[in-house]
Amino acid sequence: MSPKKEVLVLKDLLGSNKKIAGEIRAHLEEKGILTLNLLSSPGAGKTTLLEKLIEHLHPTYRIGVIEGDIETTRDAERIRAKGVSAWQITTGGACHLEAKMVGNLFSQIPADLDFLFIENVGNLVCPASYDLGEHLRLVLLSSPEGDDKPKKYPKAFTTADALVITKIDLIPHLPFDPQRAAQEARELNPELKIFTVSSVTGEGIQELSSFLIEKLKELRTIHA
Amino acid sequence: MSPKKEVLVLKDLLGSNKKIAGEIRAHLEEKGILTLNLLSSPGAGKTTLLEKLIEHLHPTYRIGVIEGDIETTRDAERIRAKGVSAWQITTGGACHLEAKMVGNLFSQIPADLDFLFIENVGNLVCPASYDLGEHLRLVLLSSPEGDDKPKKYPKAFTTADALVITKIDLIPHLPFDPQRAAQEARELNPELKIFTVSSVTGEGIQELSSFLIEKLKELRTIHA
Repeated sequence: MSPKKEVLVLKDLLGSNKKIAGEIRAHLEEKGILTLNLLSSPGAGKTTLLEKLIEHLHPTYRIGVIEGDIETTRDAERIRAKGVSAWQITTGGACHLEAKMVGNLFSQIPADLDFLFIENVGNLVCPASYDLGEHLRLVLLSSPEGDDKPKKYPKAFTTADALVITKIDLIPHLPFDPQRAAQEARELNPELKIFTVSSVTGEGIQELSSFLIEKLKELRTIHA
Repeated sequence: MSPKKEVLVLKDLLGSNKKIAGEIRAHLEEKGILTLNLLSSPGAGKTTLLEKLIEHLHPTYRIGVIEGDIETTRDAERIRAKGVSAWQITTGGACHLEAKMVGNLFSQIPADLDFLFIENVGNLVCPASYDLGEHLRLVLLSSPEGDDKPKKYPKAFTTADALVITKIDLIPHLPFDPQRAAQEARELNPELKIFTVSSVTGEGIQELSSFLIEKLKELRTIHA
């Protein structure tokens, strides 16, 4: 296939995805459900962060989680063990979630949720190109990955609303400078909100939870 | 685009890639250059492992490195600082290297190399589908990523010849069981060779270097 044809096919796919994502977002806004798309490399701590956020927010807030994985239902099982609903999407090889996969689950998702978290496939590249109808995109960067990653994988950082630097309890054992990581990310995206968290010590989870509650209030004020 | 058409396009692309990869492999065998394709998540330690292998192997062995990244030439600069030749491929967004990208560099690569290392884009998913003409595929799993990753991202492990568990110096601070990671990987791929290394302490680098030297000898015996 010629490079020109490849680009046209990709534009088609993304155009169709964007349309479905817009419909999903409108539906969620009507219900007042704040929806978050979590992106990161494999093993950056997305599921563990969700477990900690659920401990803070549930049962005061009603939570649902969509788990995207290549294979296994391990992550959905971990989330259900926390007492909230989780729906597993196993892509069977595909490297990212698409809006239609989220749309296909809609009949199963209760209309009275406060938060819908979508944990994307662990991949810092491909998921950044696919709008899932979310209101906020969170990119996680775990400290063991290194502080040079934002400019090496820019799209996840330029398209995110917030950066969550995870596993900060490990920083004493690593050549990781959180200031450098934050500065690189802000050079790519000056509007980026930045949080630093440890799911082991609990540091930073309260601040991130408060930010999400504030964003839920904003959504409901705008779409009241 | 219909799902059926998507599959046909992908098969076309992979078929063409496979053909080019075969030509590259034949060319490298004729020159006696053992070629390795390194796959992993972002930040699993591919470049640092290469720096350590170069310290062991260079200048006794002649080494070249192809660096694949979405953006920046940082990794090639790190490799050149070790005194060996490095060629940077910046994909400008693409999530994996393809054989034709490697083929395009051939006029620049000296014919008297012993080892050609290809560091793929940091992505545990997409690069697994693309043969680059390598003789050995190494998948890296860093201990902070978690011991549950092989079955969640199976293709990288089923297509690899060796698994290198990296950052083992961090294990005392992590919920990571190297035996579980190794067992999962071997259930997917019983032939997999497994190494455990720390680029901080140097543990395991000698064993991995010896394995590569052995494989170089085998290549030259077979294609003498």
